[in-house]
Amino acid sequence: MNTFGRKLRLSIWGESHGPALGVVIDGVPAGIEIGTADFMADIERRQGGKAHTTPRIESDTPTLLSGIYQGHTTGAPLSILFHNQAQQSSDYETLATTPRPGHADWVAAHKFGGLNDPRGGGHFSGRLTLPLVAAGVVAKKILALRAPELKIEAHIVELGGSGDKECWGDILAAAAAKGDSVGAIVECRAEGMPIGLGEPFFDSLEGLLAHAAFAIPGIRGVEFGDGFGAARSYGSTHNDAIVAPDGTTATNHAGGINGGLSNGNPLVMRVAFKPTSSIALAQQSLNTATGKVEPLDIGGRHDVCIALRGAVVVEAVVAIVLADCIL
Amino acid sequence: MNTFGRKLRLSIWGESHGPALGVVIDGVPAGIEIGTADFMADIERRQGGKAHTTPRIESDTPTLLSGIYQGHTTGAPLSILFHNQAQQSSDYETLATTPRPGHADWVAAHKFGGLNDPRGGGHFSGRLTLPLVAAGVVAKKILALRAPELKIEAHIVELGGSGDKECWGDILAAAAAKGDSVGAIVECRAEGMPIGLGEPFFDSLEGLLAHAAFAIPGIRGVEFGDGFGAARSYGSTHNDAIVAPDGTTATNHAGGINGGLSNGNPLVMRVAFKPTSSIALAQQSLNTATGKVEPLDIGGRHDVCIALRGAVVVEAVVAIVLADCIL
Amino acid sequence: MNTFGRKLRLSIWGESHGPALGVVIDGVPAGIEIGTADFMADIERRQGGKAHTTPRIESDTPTLLSGIYQGHTTGAPLSILFHNQAQQSSDYETLATTPRPGHADWVAAHKFGGLNDPRGGGHFSGRLTLPLVAAGVVAKKILALRAPELKIEAHIVELGGSGDKECWGDILAAAAAKGDSVGAIVECRAEGMPIGLGEPFFDSLEGLLAHAAFAIPGIRGVEFGDGFGAARSYGSTHNDAIVAPDGTTATNHAGGINGGLSNGNPLVMRVAFKPTSSIALAQQSLNTATGKVEPLDIGGRHDVCIALRGAVVVEAVVAIVLADCIL
Amino acid sequence: MNTFGRKLRLSIWGESHGPALGVVIDGVPAGIEIGTADFMADIERRQGGKAHTTPRIESDTPTLLSGIYQGHTTGAPLSILFHNQAQQSSDYETLATTPRPGHADWVAAHKFGGLNDPRGGGHFSGRLTLPLVAAGVVAKKILALRAPELKIEAHIVELGGSGDKECWGDILAAAAAKGDSVGAIVECRAEGMPIGLGEPFFDSLEGLLAHAAFAIPGIRGVEFGDGFGAARSYGSTHNDAIVAPDGTTATNHAGGINGGLSNGNPLVMRVAFKPTSSIALAQQSLNTATGKVEPLDIGGRHDVCIALRGAVVVEAVVAIVLADCIL
Repeated sequence: MNTFGRKLRLSIWGESHGPALGVVIDGVPAGIEIGTADFMADIERRQGGKAHTTPRIESDTPTLLSGIYQGHTTGAPLSILFHNQAQQSSDYETLATTPRPGHADWVAAHKFGGLNDPRGGGHFSGRLTLPLVAAGVVAKKILALRAPELKIEAHIVELGGSGDKECWGDILAAAAAKGDSVGAIVECRAEGMPIGLGEPFFDSLEGLLAHAAFAIPGIRGVEFGDGFGAARSYGSTHNDAIVAPDGTTATNHAGGINGGLSNGNPLVMRVAFKPTSSIALAQQSLNTATGKVEPLDIGGRHDVCIALRGAVVVEAVVAIVLADCIL
Repeated sequence: MNTFGRKLRLSIWGESHGPALGVVIDGVPAGIEIGTADFMADIERRQGGKAHTTPRIESDTPTLLSGIYQGHTTGAPLSILFHNQAQQSSDYETLATTPRPGHADWVAAHKFGGLNDPRGGGHFSGRLTLPLVAAGVVAKKILALRAPELKIEAHIVELGGSGDKECWGDILAAAAAKGDSVGAIVECRAEGMPIGLGEPFFDSLEGLLAHAAFAIPGIRGVEFGDGFGAARSYGSTHNDAIVAPDGTTATNHAGGINGGLSNGNPLVMRVAFKPTSSIALAQQSLNTATGKVEPLDIGGRHDVCIALRGAVVVEAVVAIVLADCIL
Repeated sequence: MNTFGRKLRLSIWGESHGPALGVVIDGVPAGIEIGTADFMADIERRQGGKAHTTPRIESDTPTLLSGIYQGHTTGAPLSILFHNQAQQSSDYETLATTPRPGHADWVAAHKFGGLNDPRGGGHFSGRLTLPLVAAGVVAKKILALRAPELKIEAHIVELGGSGDKECWGDILAAAAAKGDSVGAIVECRAEGMPIGLGEPFFDSLEGLLAHAAFAIPGIRGVEFGDGFGAARSYGSTHNDAIVAPDGTTATNHAGGINGGLSNGNPLVMRVAFKPTSSIALAQQSLNTATGKVEPLDIGGRHDVCIALRGAVVVEAVVAIVLADCIL
Repeated sequence: MNTFGRKLRLSIWGESHGPALGVVIDGVPAGIEIGTADFMADIERRQGGKAHTTPRIESDTPTLLSGIYQGHTTGAPLSILFHNQAQQSSDYETLATTPRPGHADWVAAHKFGGLNDPRGGGHFSGRLTLPLVAAGVVAKKILALRAPELKIEAHIVELGGSGDKECWGDILAAAAAKGDSVGAIVECRAEGMPIGLGEPFFDSLEGLLAHAAFAIPGIRGVEFGDGFGAARSYGSTHNDAIVAPDGTTATNHAGGINGGLSNGNPLVMRVAFKPTSSIALAQQSLNTATGKVEPLDIGGRHDVCIALRGAVVVEAVVAIVLADCIL
């Protein structure tokens, strides 16, 4: 459901075009200094308005409603709220009867008997990653105190099939010119990992991270270390030899996890973002009113590549899971 | 921890070389006819003793201790136990001080202060997938009643880097001859899927499936539909056009899931199995007693490719998650 | 923690003197018509400003931030927020060093290292029952659809030791005149109960109800049916004879529950409210700054009997648990 | 369901007349020395065969199946199994159509569509408290290490309405002579309590304890400190004055809990046990085959007072909850 975490527990709520959206974060230790300004760097990384991202700009300033007193956390739940300001519901009116390919429109309408909020994808909107990023900021604050060596960084490592960063501008421009979109792979690395995070049997660190990562709209795959490449390798090359008493391995094909537990080597996770589903190019979809497949024109401008804004979301998700494990 | 599921809830316990291992399955509806014989087909698929799998043969017959009366489930928890019979702890005595590369030996010893059961990997052993397969059988029984159209099938689609099934015997034989091991990819498809399984925001169907799948020892990645291939595609080709009132799409790049919810099209999930960590080839590892990196010789014979026995485990995991969602 | 419920899941947040407080309610089925006005009857029952209750009056109008579209629920989480308006933090400044007897002041400061919000009890304030009442309204709406026969009603059955309603005004007036407070017992009855609510072994209906009820500040005991009176009775008189095929019993000493499951007879639960801890009479408490026990004068006016406002909270709690069981 | 606890998590399974019953205990820290003998003292306290308790004697020796290696816990789940030996199912055959008053027979049959195991109450049998006592022993071992000052003791404080211990033998003998049964109140005190156990808002220490306690068959009420007596008292007498920097209060009307958190003073909890439902006296109940209310004669001999065996179960429940909070 909309809750995640055992000790650091998030409850996410809101819709793309409702009055507000937000997150309640339970389990935050008392005494962490945090204010509105602390959220802005990550929120800006997630924000549209840059090249090849949606021009929908919102202030996206969080309102901290509870759990903070005299500038620090109190041990009570944090309630963080974002007002929605820039929504233009009329953009979506014509979509009521024609579900957008790649979106949750059709399946959400089916699951909720047509009673879901369809505007902008409603509760399924990518805008829900905004409170997720806010929760990530809180998680990073916790980690800074509890695991000060830890550094988490996510960025795009492949875009439109190319691992060469210098080509990405061209790929994006070409796709944008056609009204198309492209996918990308985001890699998140965490250095300075504590040893032993994760729990047998079901709460492997990979399992927890993947569970949380797949909440991000548009993720198609999650892998660790060599990932799918491991399936193409041999034991003699894939095994990481332990070479130091602190568990350091000569190689890191495992991505820092053995038996579901962090082994102290860098955590390496990659997630595959599909290309943005909303594209300017005409598409086919069922008109549920007429029962016919018809061309569909999705108005507005959209991200050419959701991963451009998604890297910080992946980073947030990793921080949230690691903080939950450490607490 | 060792519990998984909201309505169908598993609690897994046991070690490779303890007296027994098993699973408690809570939430099984009353009235499902089930007996020991029902478990054997899947258990045999998982069993060693075939070509290129470990010669450790156990009867692996489940003992049903509770939750069954007059041949049917009662609504009370099922307790299923497997006795361990063939363990040879002496195989592992020399490994006490030298953690095997690729295994949880080192990290488990670190996490549990050296107090874990090290014999055969203890609680981290692949043998724990035996009760998982048993739980999968129960889940399939539930699904047969609640979603009779549903068919779940997992099998290897790539082995040692080759998608050509005819080559696999040679690849395995070559690796076995060298004392090496190979990885593989298992694909699980579920046809006849109910619509709307999965819950926003965190309990996406992908998230639940991935969470459970990563409990299987040796998994490095999980993907759905085009998976990592989606990151290399364009929106115009990746989007699946909805072409019928029942949600059927012209293509299935999404692998049967939109917005975290099953959309009625076939569920397609692939998992990457690493090559078996236990290989006959000499490896290097730290001797924790001497503090030196030394050659390590792992005795015994092992699976050349764990995915040979893993496909049925993936199938079990998918059945467990789908049954939990349907209940 | 601050989350409760399996299928209807509440996340409560806020403090007495923060900007706002509220609740996120997950698992509400789509299609329930609900608006701000629906909350007011129960909120007014809980509200101060009547005889013998605190004169702190707030508008207490809920703001519905999510999960509602075109007047009905959507299946997405409801976020309900109440602004705090009437708080006078200066009332509490002098209490910073002297914990009020009967309140959580001392233990909360100890648990959270003095970092909790102390104003008005912070997160431990009885004001947190306001979002609980709001959640109860949502639960009642669910029950009205899913169990239309069900009627839940809570009211005081004993006050200041007297079961005679006609004496209560005098008891309250006498206590108020002295600056003292009195306790009371609230009974909640639910008629038209569905059969079989509750789950073995741990989620007995009594266990779930008691778990939730003890979240209400000031509860000292919870009992069902004859309750503690059962401990003074004989099996021959206590056992309820089943006299009809629908499970109707000749008596209802069990309070409508056998084996942890509702048996279709009226649910009868009683909760003991302690007398209000905040009293005008001078009390002794430790001054943590001086280390001495000193007289403490708690300013302001307070409820003479918290149960006067608590009956609707008990009703809310029962509705929440029953709705969670029914979903 | 059949799982309880967040960090120390129990999964209970089994039936009165099945081959075995048991508990899986997850979250037990590694390194706790424990063996079969450690369980026997508490198991014997729970056992029948003494005066006024059921003559059904079983060896009740636990089999430790996992989570223990070289005499200590490993951090992996403990699986503890008890074989059933003395069951005489024929005792219950005539009861198949006539539900016993006070038992779960009728409601369980209704909930599970007549598919539950009816023999001896099946999964609803008081015999399920045996694995609960075993889990209590494990919890006490954890507490002995983590909170060495803590002492938990439960015993009967009132029986058949009398608080005078010297009368109890007569009360029991008189009831036994008539074929009747009596109720009793068990009080559990915990001295040396850590401060701050329990979590706002829903996981108050009272809520957790009551949730667990109501899993014990035959409990009708749970109260803390003055309990229902608090409802008959005044604030001026009920409030406990804090008189020392360690939180010691001059009185302990609150039973050691404020705001849902343990305050360091002795925890005082009382639970009301109803009289044994199985009595030799003839009773009336519905014959579901004939649809008529008929006299019912329950064969066998039964406990005159379940609380005689229940005190150690209450103690176990308190230990389990406190250990879960402390971990």
